[in-house]
Amino acid sequence: MQEMKTLYRDDQTLCLIDQTLLPTRLETLRCDTVESVWEAIKTLRVRGAPAIGCAAAYGTCVGLRTLPQTATMGQIAARLREVTDYLASSRPTAVNLFWALDRMKRTYQTATQNWQKSLDLSETLAILWQEADAIFEEDRQMCRAIGRHGAALLQDGWGVLTHCNAGALATSDYGTALAVFYAGVESGKRLHVFADETRPLLQGARLTTWELQQHGVPVTLLCDNMAAQVMREGRIQAVVVGADRIAANGDAANKIGTYGVAILAKYHQIPFYVAAPSSTFDRSISTGADIPIEQRDSREVTHGFGRQTAPDGVDVYNPAFDVTPAELIAGIITEVGVLCPGQLPPQ
Amino acid sequence: MQEMKTLYRDDQTLCLIDQTLLPTRLETLRCDTVESVWEAIKTLRVRGAPAIGCAAAYGTCVGLRTLPQTATMGQIAARLREVTDYLASSRPTAVNLFWALDRMKRTYQTATQNWQKSLDLSETLAILWQEADAIFEEDRQMCRAIGRHGAALLQDGWGVLTHCNAGALATSDYGTALAVFYAGVESGKRLHVFADETRPLLQGARLTTWELQQHGVPVTLLCDNMAAQVMREGRIQAVVVGADRIAANGDAANKIGTYGVAILAKYHQIPFYVAAPSSTFDRSISTGADIPIEQRDSREVTHGFGRQTAPDGVDVYNPAFDVTPAELIAGIITEVGVLCPGQLPPQ
Repeated sequence: MQEMKTLYRDDQTLCLIDQTLLPTRLETLRCDTVESVWEAIKTLRVRGAPAIGCAAAYGTCVGLRTLPQTATMGQIAARLREVTDYLASSRPTAVNLFWALDRMKRTYQTATQNWQKSLDLSETLAILWQEADAIFEEDRQMCRAIGRHGAALLQDGWGVLTHCNAGALATSDYGTALAVFYAGVESGKRLHVFADETRPLLQGARLTTWELQQHGVPVTLLCDNMAAQVMREGRIQAVVVGADRIAANGDAANKIGTYGVAILAKYHQIPFYVAAPSSTFDRSISTGADIPIEQRDSREVTHGFGRQTAPDGVDVYNPAFDVTPAELIAGIITEVGVLCPGQLPPQ
Repeated sequence: MQEMKTLYRDDQTLCLIDQTLLPTRLETLRCDTVESVWEAIKTLRVRGAPAIGCAAAYGTCVGLRTLPQTATMGQIAARLREVTDYLASSRPTAVNLFWALDRMKRTYQTATQNWQKSLDLSETLAILWQEADAIFEEDRQMCRAIGRHGAALLQDGWGVLTHCNAGALATSDYGTALAVFYAGVESGKRLHVFADETRPLLQGARLTTWELQQHGVPVTLLCDNMAAQVMREGRIQAVVVGADRIAANGDAANKIGTYGVAILAKYHQIPFYVAAPSSTFDRSISTGADIPIEQRDSREVTHGFGRQTAPDGVDVYNPAFDVTPAELIAGIITEVGVLCPGQLPPQ
């Protein structure tokens, strides 16, 4: 399988695919200032919760490069605070962003406490780059494990449908839902992926088809409203999607349109799987009814393609995601195995 | 209800809304040459089978204007053949186009046979304009009758969902599926319409929301993949869509995405109605399985609005319509009443 790295560290620089240029241009952006990392997260050049977490961790290290080699611990600690606060301001709601920045700060605090000696800049950087590499590697292992568990559910020759992009471009490695397909193909199964374009922002058309092409996995693009017809034609044997949050009872929030796909799968007796790391489970939420539905800007629908496609002043409904009830989900594919909806991963 | 005429006759001229400029500009095009009528049909300035039929009938009359008042019957008959052949070449598959042109020719033949005298140009034009007016008026009556029968199925305060544009802009009057909503509102019921945008060509976003706005009917635009969520929220009490062809058993072909909406309605226990004139029934086809599914250009999906939104060379599935099986249809609303799927209108 061809290498396609969403982001990676090159010595002291964070390199990432500029996703705003996809699918028509593939360019790697080299970020050697914290400002360039902040801008990349802010403007969605890098997107997807796990990928943002990795970018922020590496961005923290990049941000310390402005210090002189002779910096004192006070100067290092102050700059670390400054850099992490700054990166935290790039996107307001990405949980992995804050999680990764907290982990970098805690790593530094623990190091200064445990070592009981003064850490100079090069020692500090060695520890922080190592921690960022660890975050990256854990994410990679998570993807691989999800892929392995999910691939076992698929059979040679199957058609599989996905919605939105829960793929390599959203993680440090090969994704969650798409990891299942990549691992299936790697294990020698012939799979054909059908990708919903995923209105309004077309992540399926722009990103999912592109990365499957890059990996040499056969893919067919369709408009969201064509999925039922493809199922009726008998061309889909399983559906695999990602998730943004999973309630304790197994109800799963994901990109708008996922719930409809789950109903169509049920009607056609096709198993519907959710692939997500165990960190996606939110035990504080008992059912999906408690997950609020975010409304987004109507212009995403009315001016989606750089051209106005609906009349001025029209009322628009544009929820960012929906909740698929547990009873429509055949299984939740996590890095610790395939869970029945309602079953929780070990803590 | 505000007047919004898709097309109408103004003395010897055909006037029509240039639908290619919607929803951002409303302009009426005055066609006083047959070439301008041909161009309007060809380039979709006027669209929808019933509306095309009316435009072709009026266009036939417009085309005779080039003759001198002293034209012989031989010259009139030759020009009539020339004009109808020319208009028939505007779009290859619109059945109503050929039907209307045949009817205009037959009207002239019958007149010359019955009158048993020479018809001059002004007498001929009087007969042909009258026949075009009759085609227009029959279409109007059909819309009104469908509206009346369908409106009786709706209750005050209901939310109703439609897909694509089976509205005023597709007919000489106020449509088929949308006629049901217009008639409901006219009869004093408060309705709120939810309009699927209808990818790939966005007829729902561009045309349905626009004409409902023009008529003052409350409407909310949504992406196709949001319909399930709106149903789950309890905001939809009925679905009404149009049809392109209905098989003898009640299976109904309509714009791609209709079948999926029917499944979603079934899951949420919402009645799903098809509104279409009895001429839509094709008794030669026993079930929907015999209706071929036309594939359209992949660029409609990948280059929807002047911008490339999918990678080069990607495989695309782009069927123009799908077939909703009779068991998902609660009733077929025709001009002769509401039929159970499988029941045929009187011939």
